[in-house]
Amino acid sequence: MREIEAIAVDIFGTTVDWRTGVVDGLHRLAADKDLSFGAGALADAWRERYLPAVAQINSGERAWANLDTIHAEALDECLDLFGYSEHFGAAEREEMVRAWYVLPPWRDSLDGLRKLRENHIVVALSNGGFALLTRLIKTAGLPFDAVISAENVQAYKPDVRAYRHAARLLDLPPDRILMVAAHTWDIDGARAAGLRTAFVERPDEKGPGRTADRAEDTTCDLTAQSFTELADALVRG
Amino acid sequence: MREIEAIAVDIFGTTVDWRTGVVDGLHRLAADKDLSFGAGALADAWRERYLPAVAQINSGERAWANLDTIHAEALDECLDLFGYSEHFGAAEREEMVRAWYVLPPWRDSLDGLRKLRENHIVVALSNGGFALLTRLIKTAGLPFDAVISAENVQAYKPDVRAYRHAARLLDLPPDRILMVAAHTWDIDGARAAGLRTAFVERPDEKGPGRTADRAEDTTCDLTAQSFTELADALVRG
Repeated sequence: MREIEAIAVDIFGTTVDWRTGVVDGLHRLAADKDLSFGAGALADAWRERYLPAVAQINSGERAWANLDTIHAEALDECLDLFGYSEHFGAAEREEMVRAWYVLPPWRDSLDGLRKLRENHIVVALSNGGFALLTRLIKTAGLPFDAVISAENVQAYKPDVRAYRHAARLLDLPPDRILMVAAHTWDIDGARAAGLRTAFVERPDEKGPGRTADRAEDTTCDLTAQSFTELADALVRG
Repeated sequence: MREIEAIAVDIFGTTVDWRTGVVDGLHRLAADKDLSFGAGALADAWRERYLPAVAQINSGERAWANLDTIHAEALDECLDLFGYSEHFGAAEREEMVRAWYVLPPWRDSLDGLRKLRENHIVVALSNGGFALLTRLIKTAGLPFDAVISAENVQAYKPDVRAYRHAARLLDLPPDRILMVAAHTWDIDGARAAGLRTAFVERPDEKGPGRTADRAEDTTCDLTAQSFTELADALVRG
Protein backbone atom coordinates (compact mmCIF):
# COMPACT_ATOMS: atom_id res chain seq x y z
CA MET A 1 0.00 0.00 0.00
CA ARG A 2 2.99 2.30 -0.47
CA GLU A 3 1.33 4.02 -3.40
CA ILE A 4 -1.54 5.43 -1.30
CA GLU A 5 -1.19 9.23 -1.20
CA ALA A 6 -4.48 10.32 0.36
CA ILE A 7 -6.84 8.74 2.85
CA ALA A 8 -10.54 9.59 2.71
CA VAL A 9 -12.33 8.86 5.96
CA ASP A 10 -16.04 8.43 6.53
CA ILE A 11 -17.43 10.33 9.54
CA PHE A 12 -20.76 9.05 10.96
CA GLY A 13 -20.15 5.68 12.60
CA THR A 14 -16.58 5.39 11.34
CA THR A 15 -14.91 8.39 13.04
CA VAL A 16 -17.62 9.45 15.49
CA ASP A 17 -20.17 7.51 17.55
CA TRP A 18 -23.29 9.06 16.04
CA ARG A 19 -25.70 6.98 18.10
CA THR A 20 -24.36 7.92 21.54
CA GLY A 21 -24.23 11.56 20.47
CA VAL A 22 -27.72 11.67 19.00
CA VAL A 23 -29.27 9.75 21.93
CA ASP A 24 -27.58 12.19 24.37
CA GLY A 25 -28.87 15.13 22.36
CA LEU A 26 -32.43 13.74 22.28
CA HIS A 27 -32.39 13.04 26.03
CA ARG A 28 -31.23 16.58 26.72
CA LEU A 29 -33.99 18.06 24.58
CA ALA A 30 -36.69 15.83 26.09
CA ALA A 31 -35.48 16.21 29.69
CA ASP A 32 -38.13 18.74 30.68
CA LYS A 33 -41.02 16.87 29.03
CA ASP A 34 -43.38 14.65 31.04
CA LEU A 35 -42.76 11.86 28.61
CA SER A 36 -41.45 8.31 28.74
CA PHE A 37 -39.05 8.82 25.91
CA GLY A 38 -37.33 6.05 23.97
CA ALA A 39 -34.40 8.06 22.66
CA GLY A 40 -32.48 4.98 21.48
CA ALA A 41 -35.38 3.60 19.46
CA LEU A 42 -36.07 7.05 18.04
CA ALA A 43 -32.43 7.51 17.02
CA ASP A 44 -32.41 4.10 15.34
CA ALA A 45 -35.64 4.75 13.42
CA TRP A 46 -34.27 8.17 12.43
CA ARG A 47 -31.01 6.73 11.10
CA GLU A 48 -32.85 3.94 9.21
CA ARG A 49 -34.50 6.57 7.04
CA TYR A 50 -31.16 7.98 5.90
CA LEU A 51 -29.99 5.56 3.21
CA PRO A 52 -33.40 5.30 1.45
CA ALA A 53 -33.56 9.13 1.27
CA VAL A 54 -30.02 9.29 -0.14
CA ALA A 55 -30.88 6.63 -2.73
CA GLN A 56 -33.86 8.67 -3.94
CA ILE A 57 -31.59 11.66 -4.55
CA ASN A 58 -28.82 9.66 -6.20
CA SER A 59 -31.31 8.04 -8.59
CA GLY A 60 -32.59 11.44 -9.69
CA GLU A 61 -36.07 10.63 -8.39
CA ARG A 62 -35.66 13.61 -6.10
CA ALA A 63 -33.69 16.89 -6.44
CA TRP A 64 -30.64 17.54 -4.26
CA ALA A 65 -31.35 18.10 -0.59
CA ASN A 66 -28.75 18.63 2.11
CA LEU A 67 -28.35 16.05 4.90
CA ASP A 68 -29.94 18.51 7.36
CA THR A 69 -33.10 18.52 5.23
CA ILE A 70 -33.13 14.73 5.07
CA HIS A 71 -32.67 14.61 8.84
CA ALA A 72 -35.46 17.13 9.44
CA GLU A 73 -37.96 15.25 7.28
CA ALA A 74 -37.09 11.87 8.76
CA LEU A 75 -37.36 13.30 12.28
CA ASP A 76 -40.88 14.56 11.58
CA GLU A 77 -41.86 11.08 10.38
CA CYS A 78 -40.31 9.39 13.41
CA LEU A 79 -41.90 11.76 15.94
CA ASP A 80 -45.26 11.02 14.33
CA LEU A 81 -44.61 7.29 14.37
CA PHE A 82 -43.65 7.29 18.06
CA GLY A 83 -46.57 9.56 19.02
CA TYR A 84 -44.28 12.38 20.19
CA SER A 85 -45.35 14.89 17.57
CA GLU A 86 -47.35 17.23 19.79
CA HIS A 87 -44.46 17.50 22.28
CA PHE A 88 -41.92 19.07 19.96
CA GLY A 89 -42.28 22.39 18.15
CA ALA A 90 -40.30 23.66 15.15
CA ALA A 91 -37.47 25.22 17.19
CA GLU A 92 -36.98 22.03 19.22
CA ARG A 93 -36.93 19.96 16.06
CA GLU A 94 -34.25 22.20 14.62
CA GLU A 95 -32.22 21.67 17.76
CA MET A 96 -32.70 17.90 17.41
CA VAL A 97 -31.35 18.07 13.86
CA ARG A 98 -28.37 19.99 15.26
CA ALA A 99 -27.66 17.02 17.57
CA TRP A 100 -25.84 15.59 14.53
CA TYR A 101 -23.37 18.51 14.69
CA VAL A 102 -21.86 17.46 18.03
CA LEU A 103 -20.87 13.80 18.20
CA PRO A 104 -18.15 12.07 20.23
CA PRO A 105 -15.18 10.54 18.36
CA TRP A 106 -14.39 6.89 18.95
CA ARG A 107 -11.60 6.40 21.49
CA ASP A 108 -8.86 5.86 18.85
CA SER A 109 -10.03 8.45 16.29
CA LEU A 110 -7.87 11.45 17.26
CA ASP A 111 -4.62 9.54 17.81
CA GLY A 112 -5.26 7.39 14.76
CA LEU A 113 -5.91 10.35 12.46
CA ARG A 114 -2.76 12.07 13.75
CA LYS A 115 -0.74 8.96 12.93
CA LEU A 116 -2.34 8.60 9.50
CA ARG A 117 -1.57 12.26 8.74
CA GLU A 118 2.14 11.74 9.29
CA ASN A 119 2.50 10.06 5.93
CA HIS A 120 -0.68 10.89 4.05
CA ILE A 121 -3.15 13.59 3.17
CA VAL A 122 -6.16 12.74 5.33
CA VAL A 123 -9.55 14.18 4.39
CA ALA A 124 -13.05 13.68 5.71
CA LEU A 125 -15.31 12.33 2.94
CA SER A 126 -18.86 12.34 4.19
CA ASN A 127 -22.50 12.75 3.23
CA GLY A 128 -22.82 15.43 5.90
CA GLY A 129 -23.19 19.00 4.66
CA PHE A 130 -20.06 21.16 4.61
CA ALA A 131 -21.33 23.35 7.45
CA LEU A 132 -22.21 20.35 9.60
CA LEU A 133 -18.88 18.63 8.94
CA THR A 134 -16.80 21.74 9.59
CA ARG A 135 -18.50 22.30 12.96
CA LEU A 136 -18.51 18.62 13.94
CA ILE A 137 -14.82 18.23 13.13
CA LYS A 138 -13.87 21.43 14.94
CA THR A 139 -15.88 20.60 18.07
CA ALA A 140 -14.50 17.06 18.21
CA GLY A 141 -10.94 18.31 17.54
CA LEU A 142 -10.45 15.89 14.65
CA PRO A 143 -7.19 16.71 12.85
CA PHE A 144 -8.21 16.43 9.19
CA ASP A 145 -6.24 18.12 6.40
CA ALA A 146 -9.44 19.07 4.59
CA VAL A 147 -13.16 18.37 4.43
CA ILE A 148 -14.92 17.04 1.33
CA SER A 149 -18.70 16.96 1.52
CA ALA A 150 -21.10 15.19 -0.83
CA GLU A 151 -22.72 18.63 -0.97
CA ASN A 152 -19.88 19.85 -3.20
CA VAL A 153 -20.85 17.51 -6.04
CA GLN A 154 -24.52 17.05 -5.04
CA ALA A 155 -24.26 13.28 -5.13
CA TYR A 156 -24.21 11.11 -2.03
CA LYS A 157 -22.01 8.14 -1.26
CA PRO A 158 -22.31 5.29 -2.30
CA ASP A 159 -22.83 6.88 -5.75
CA VAL A 160 -19.49 6.67 -7.58
CA ARG A 161 -19.72 10.40 -8.38
CA ALA A 162 -19.10 11.26 -4.73
CA TYR A 163 -15.79 9.34 -4.62
CA ARG A 164 -14.64 10.43 -8.08
CA HIS A 165 -15.31 14.04 -7.18
CA ALA A 166 -12.99 13.63 -4.21
CA ALA A 167 -10.31 12.15 -6.48
CA ARG A 168 -10.67 15.07 -8.90
CA LEU A 169 -10.46 17.62 -6.08
CA LEU A 170 -7.34 15.94 -4.72
CA ASP A 171 -5.93 15.67 -8.26
CA LEU A 172 -5.19 11.97 -7.77
CA PRO A 173 -6.09 8.79 -9.65
CA PRO A 174 -8.76 6.96 -7.59
CA ASP A 175 -6.40 4.09 -6.79
CA ARG A 176 -4.01 6.44 -4.97
CA ILE A 177 -6.79 7.09 -2.44
CA LEU A 178 -7.76 4.77 0.41
CA MET A 179 -11.38 4.98 1.58
CA VAL A 180 -11.79 4.17 5.26
CA ALA A 181 -15.28 3.23 6.40
CA ALA A 182 -17.26 1.06 8.82
CA HIS A 183 -20.10 0.33 6.40
CA THR A 184 -20.22 -2.21 3.62
CA TRP A 185 -22.22 0.14 1.36
CA ASP A 186 -19.51 2.80 1.60
CA ILE A 187 -16.72 0.31 0.93
CA ASP A 188 -18.70 -1.08 -2.03
CA GLY A 189 -19.22 2.40 -3.51
CA ALA A 190 -15.58 3.36 -3.09
CA ARG A 191 -14.39 0.11 -4.68
CA ALA A 192 -16.79 0.64 -7.61
CA ALA A 193 -15.26 4.10 -8.10
CA GLY A 194 -11.75 2.62 -8.23
CA LEU A 195 -10.54 3.63 -4.75
CA ARG A 196 -8.61 1.33 -2.45
CA THR A 197 -10.59 0.37 0.64
CA ALA A 198 -10.04 -0.20 4.35
CA PHE A 199 -12.81 -1.49 6.60
CA VAL A 200 -12.55 -0.31 10.20
CA GLU A 201 -14.95 -2.33 12.32
CA ARG A 202 -17.05 -0.38 14.80
CA PRO A 203 -19.05 -3.11 16.58
CA ASP A 204 -20.96 -0.63 18.78
CA GLU A 205 -21.90 1.68 15.91
CA LYS A 206 -25.57 0.70 15.78
CA GLY A 207 -25.98 0.57 19.55
CA PRO A 208 -26.63 -2.28 21.99
CA GLY A 209 -28.27 -5.44 20.65
CA ARG A 210 -27.84 -4.42 17.02
CA THR A 211 -25.27 -5.93 14.68
CA ALA A 212 -22.86 -3.53 13.02
CA ASP A 213 -21.52 -4.10 9.51
CA ARG A 214 -18.52 -6.43 9.39
CA ALA A 215 -15.51 -6.54 7.09
CA GLU A 216 -16.26 -10.16 6.15
CA ASP A 217 -19.52 -9.06 4.53
CA THR A 218 -17.69 -7.18 1.79
CA THR A 219 -14.42 -7.12 -0.15
CA CYS A 220 -11.72 -4.69 0.90
CA ASP A 221 -7.96 -4.22 0.72
CA LEU A 222 -7.42 -3.84 4.45
CA THR A 223 -9.28 -4.53 7.69
CA ALA A 224 -8.59 -2.95 11.07
CA GLN A 225 -10.22 -2.62 14.48
CA SER A 226 -9.17 1.03 14.94
CA PHE A 227 -7.58 3.98 13.15
CA THR A 228 -4.35 3.40 15.10
CA GLU A 229 -4.24 -0.22 13.95
CA LEU A 230 -4.86 0.98 10.39
CA ALA A 231 -2.02 3.53 10.66
CA ASP A 232 0.34 0.80 11.87
CA ALA A 233 -0.71 -1.49 9.03
CA LEU A 234 0.00 1.24 6.46
CA VAL A 235 3.46 1.93 7.91
CA ARG A 236 4.27 -1.81 7.70
CA GLY A 237 3.09 -1.61 4.06
CA MET B 1 -17.25 42.23 16.01
CA ARG B 2 -18.84 39.81 18.49
CA GLU B 3 -21.23 38.54 15.83
CA ILE B 4 -18.45 37.15 13.60
CA GLU B 5 -18.74 33.34 13.55
CA ALA B 6 -16.33 32.36 10.80
CA ILE B 7 -13.11 33.84 9.49
CA ALA B 8 -12.16 33.30 5.85
CA VAL B 9 -8.47 33.80 5.22
CA ASP B 10 -6.74 34.46 1.92
CA ILE B 11 -3.60 32.38 1.31
CA PHE B 12 -1.11 33.76 -1.28
CA GLY B 13 0.51 36.86 0.17
CA THR B 14 -1.78 37.00 3.20
CA THR B 15 -0.92 33.72 4.96
CA VAL B 16 2.16 32.63 3.03
CA ASP B 17 5.05 34.52 1.45
CA TRP B 18 4.46 33.40 -2.14
CA ARG B 19 7.34 35.44 -3.58
CA THR B 20 10.10 34.03 -1.37
CA GLY B 21 8.77 30.51 -1.96
CA VAL B 22 8.46 30.85 -5.72
CA VAL B 23 11.86 32.56 -6.09
CA ASP B 24 13.46 29.74 -4.04
CA GLY B 25 11.72 27.15 -6.18
CA LEU B 26 12.86 28.82 -9.41
CA HIS B 27 16.46 29.11 -8.17
CA ARG B 28 16.47 25.43 -7.24
CA LEU B 29 15.19 24.42 -10.66
CA ALA B 30 17.64 26.66 -12.52
CA ALA B 31 20.65 25.82 -10.34
CA ASP B 32 22.22 23.43 -12.83
CA LYS B 33 21.71 25.69 -15.85
CA ASP B 34 24.48 27.85 -17.23
CA LEU B 35 22.22 30.85 -17.08
CA SER B 36 22.22 34.24 -15.43
CA PHE B 37 18.74 33.82 -14.05
CA GLY B 38 16.57 36.65 -12.69
CA ALA B 39 14.27 34.56 -10.53
CA GLY B 40 12.78 37.59 -8.75
CA ALA B 41 11.88 39.41 -11.95
CA LEU B 42 10.49 36.19 -13.41
CA ALA B 43 8.36 35.56 -10.31
CA ASP B 44 7.03 39.12 -10.44
CA ALA B 45 6.16 38.93 -14.14
CA TRP B 46 4.54 35.55 -13.51
CA ARG B 47 2.38 36.86 -10.68
CA GLU B 48 1.38 39.96 -12.70
CA ARG B 49 -0.39 37.72 -15.19
CA TYR B 50 -2.59 36.18 -12.53
CA LEU B 51 -5.34 38.78 -11.97
CA PRO B 52 -5.91 39.48 -15.70
CA ALA B 53 -6.33 35.72 -16.32
CA VAL B 54 -8.76 35.45 -13.43
CA ALA B 55 -10.76 38.43 -14.73
CA GLN B 56 -11.14 36.77 -18.14
CA ILE B 57 -12.65 33.69 -16.51
CA ASN B 58 -14.92 35.62 -14.16
CA SER B 59 -16.29 37.68 -17.06
CA GLY B 60 -17.21 34.53 -18.96
CA GLU B 61 -14.83 35.46 -21.79
CA ARG B 62 -13.01 32.24 -21.03
CA ALA B 63 -14.19 28.88 -19.62
CA TRP B 64 -13.12 27.75 -16.15
CA ALA B 65 -9.47 26.86 -15.77
CA ASN B 66 -7.75 25.84 -12.56
CA LEU B 67 -5.04 28.06 -11.05
CA ASP B 68 -2.41 25.50 -12.07
CA THR B 69 -3.45 25.96 -15.71
CA ILE B 70 -3.30 29.75 -15.38
CA HIS B 71 0.15 29.42 -13.79
CA ALA B 72 1.38 27.07 -16.53
CA GLU B 73 0.26 29.37 -19.35
CA ALA B 74 1.65 32.50 -17.71
CA LEU B 75 4.95 30.72 -17.06
CA ASP B 76 5.28 29.84 -20.73
CA GLU B 77 4.73 33.48 -21.65
CA CYS B 78 7.26 34.72 -19.10
CA LEU B 79 9.94 32.23 -20.07
CA ASP B 80 9.54 33.40 -23.68
CA LEU B 81 9.67 37.03 -22.63
CA PHE B 82 12.86 36.56 -20.62
CA GLY B 83 14.51 34.47 -23.31
CA TYR B 84 14.67 31.35 -21.12
CA SER B 85 12.34 29.21 -23.20
CA GLU B 86 14.89 26.82 -24.66
CA HIS B 87 16.32 26.08 -21.21
CA PHE B 88 13.21 24.55 -19.67
CA GLY B 89 11.34 21.49 -20.91
CA ALA B 90 7.79 20.38 -20.10
CA ALA B 91 8.71 18.40 -16.98
CA GLU B 92 10.73 21.30 -15.56
CA ARG B 93 7.88 23.70 -16.25
CA GLU B 94 5.50 21.39 -14.38
CA GLU B 95 7.90 21.44 -11.45
CA MET B 96 8.01 25.23 -11.60
CA VAL B 97 4.21 25.35 -11.41
CA ARG B 98 4.47 23.07 -8.38
CA ALA B 99 6.66 25.69 -6.67
CA TRP B 100 3.32 27.29 -5.71
CA TYR B 101 2.48 24.17 -3.66
CA VAL B 102 5.27 24.74 -1.10
CA LEU B 103 5.40 28.27 0.28
CA PRO B 104 6.62 29.56 3.67
CA PRO B 105 4.06 31.03 6.08
CA TRP B 106 4.64 34.53 7.41
CA ARG B 107 6.22 34.53 10.87
CA ASP B 108 2.90 35.12 12.70
CA SER B 109 0.64 32.91 10.56
CA LEU B 110 0.65 29.66 12.57
CA ASP B 111 0.30 31.25 16.01
CA GLY B 112 -2.22 33.76 14.72
CA LEU B 113 -4.42 31.12 13.09
CA ARG B 114 -4.31 29.03 16.28
CA LYS B 115 -5.50 32.04 18.27
CA LEU B 116 -8.21 32.89 15.76
CA ARG B 117 -9.45 29.28 15.88
CA GLU B 118 -10.04 29.45 19.62
CA ASN B 119 -13.21 31.46 19.11
CA HIS B 120 -14.06 31.09 15.44
CA ILE B 121 -14.33 28.69 12.55
CA VAL B 122 -11.28 29.55 10.44
CA VAL B 123 -11.23 28.49 6.79
CA ALA B 124 -8.85 29.11 3.93
CA LEU B 125 -10.67 30.93 1.10
CA SER B 126 -8.38 31.08 -1.89
CA ASN B 127 -8.19 31.05 -5.66
CA GLY B 128 -5.78 28.13 -5.44
CA GLY B 129 -7.12 24.76 -6.56
CA PHE B 130 -8.30 22.38 -3.85
CA ALA B 131 -5.38 20.00 -4.42
CA LEU B 132 -2.84 22.82 -4.29
CA LEU B 133 -4.37 24.32 -1.16
CA THR B 134 -4.63 21.01 0.69
CA ARG B 135 -0.97 20.22 0.03
CA LEU B 136 0.26 23.77 0.72
CA ILE B 137 -1.62 23.95 4.01
CA LYS B 138 -0.46 20.51 5.10
CA THR B 139 3.20 21.15 4.24
CA ALA B 140 3.18 24.53 5.97
CA GLY B 141 1.35 23.09 9.00
CA LEU B 142 -1.36 25.76 8.85
CA PRO B 143 -4.16 24.87 11.30
CA PHE B 144 -7.29 25.63 9.27
CA ASP B 145 -10.67 24.10 10.10
CA ALA B 146 -11.45 23.62 6.43
CA VAL B 147 -10.40 24.61 2.92
CA ILE B 148 -12.68 26.41 0.48
CA SER B 149 -11.32 26.76 -3.04
CA ALA B 150 -12.67 28.96 -5.84
CA GLU B 151 -12.57 25.69 -7.77
CA ASN B 152 -15.65 24.49 -5.89
CA VAL B 153 -17.86 27.20 -7.41
CA GLN B 154 -15.74 27.82 -10.52
CA ALA B 155 -15.61 31.56 -9.91
CA TYR B 156 -12.51 33.37 -8.70
CA LYS B 157 -12.22 36.06 -6.06
CA PRO B 158 -12.91 39.02 -6.35
CA ASP B 159 -16.13 37.86 -8.05
CA VAL B 160 -18.90 37.99 -5.42
CA ARG B 161 -19.87 34.41 -6.30
CA ALA B 162 -16.67 33.13 -4.69
CA TYR B 163 -17.45 34.75 -1.32
CA ARG B 164 -21.16 33.95 -1.39
CA HIS B 165 -20.39 30.33 -2.14
CA ALA B 166 -18.27 30.23 1.00
CA ALA B 167 -21.13 31.74 3.01
CA ARG B 168 -23.54 29.13 1.63
CA LEU B 169 -21.14 26.28 2.39
CA LEU B 170 -20.67 27.56 5.95
CA ASP B 171 -24.45 28.09 6.24
CA LEU B 172 -23.93 31.64 7.49
CA PRO B 173 -25.17 35.06 6.40
CA PRO B 174 -22.25 36.88 4.69
CA ASP B 175 -22.02 39.46 7.49
CA ARG B 176 -21.22 36.73 10.03
CA ILE B 177 -18.00 36.04 8.10
CA LEU B 178 -14.83 38.10 8.30
CA MET B 179 -12.61 38.06 5.20
CA VAL B 180 -8.93 38.49 6.02
CA ALA B 181 -6.69 39.59 3.15
CA ALA B 182 -3.61 41.62 2.26
CA HIS B 183 -4.97 42.82 -1.10
CA THR B 184 -7.37 45.67 -1.78
CA TRP B 185 -9.07 43.73 -4.60
CA ASP B 186 -9.88 40.84 -2.25
CA ILE B 187 -11.20 43.17 0.47
CA ASP B 188 -13.28 45.02 -2.15
CA GLY B 189 -14.78 41.78 -3.48
CA ALA B 190 -15.60 40.48 -0.01
CA ARG B 191 -17.23 43.78 0.99
CA ALA B 192 -19.30 43.75 -2.23
CA ALA B 193 -20.52 40.26 -1.30
CA GLY B 194 -21.60 41.46 2.14
CA LEU B 195 -18.77 40.00 4.23
CA ARG B 196 -16.99 41.89 6.99
CA THR B 197 -13.38 42.65 6.16
CA ALA B 198 -10.00 42.79 7.87
CA PHE B 199 -6.91 44.05 6.07
CA VAL B 200 -3.67 42.47 7.28
CA GLU B 201 -0.76 44.43 5.87
CA ARG B 202 2.10 42.40 4.41
CA PRO B 203 4.61 45.07 3.35
CA ASP B 204 7.09 42.50 1.96
CA GLU B 205 4.50 40.63 -0.04
CA LYS B 206 5.58 41.88 -3.47
CA GLY B 207 9.30 41.64 -2.70
CA PRO B 208 12.03 44.25 -2.28
CA GLY B 209 11.51 47.64 -3.90
CA ARG B 210 7.85 47.00 -4.70
CA THR B 211 4.97 48.55 -2.81
CA ALA B 212 2.46 46.16 -1.28
CA ASP B 213 -1.24 47.00 -1.00
CA ARG B 214 -2.09 49.10 2.04
CA ALA B 215 -5.20 49.21 4.21
CA GLU B 216 -5.57 52.95 3.60
CA ASP B 217 -6.19 52.30 -0.10
CA THR B 218 -9.51 50.58 0.61
CA THR B 219 -12.36 50.47 3.11
CA CYS B 220 -12.38 47.73 5.73
CA ASP B 221 -13.77 46.99 9.17
CA LEU B 222 -10.42 46.17 10.77
CA THR B 223 -6.73 46.65 10.06
CA ALA B 224 -3.86 44.67 11.58
CA GLN B 225 -0.17 44.10 11.01
CA SER B 226 -0.33 40.36 11.76
CA PHE B 227 -2.75 37.49 12.41
CA THR B 228 -1.87 37.61 16.12
CA GLU B 229 -2.72 41.32 16.27
CA LEU B 230 -5.98 40.56 14.48
CA ALA B 231 -6.82 37.78 16.97
CA ASP B 232 -6.17 40.17 19.88
CA ALA B 233 -8.37 42.83 18.27
CA LEU B 234 -11.24 40.33 17.87
CA VAL B 235 -10.98 39.22 21.49
CA ARG B 236 -11.17 42.87 22.64
CA GLY B 237 -14.28 43.17 20.42
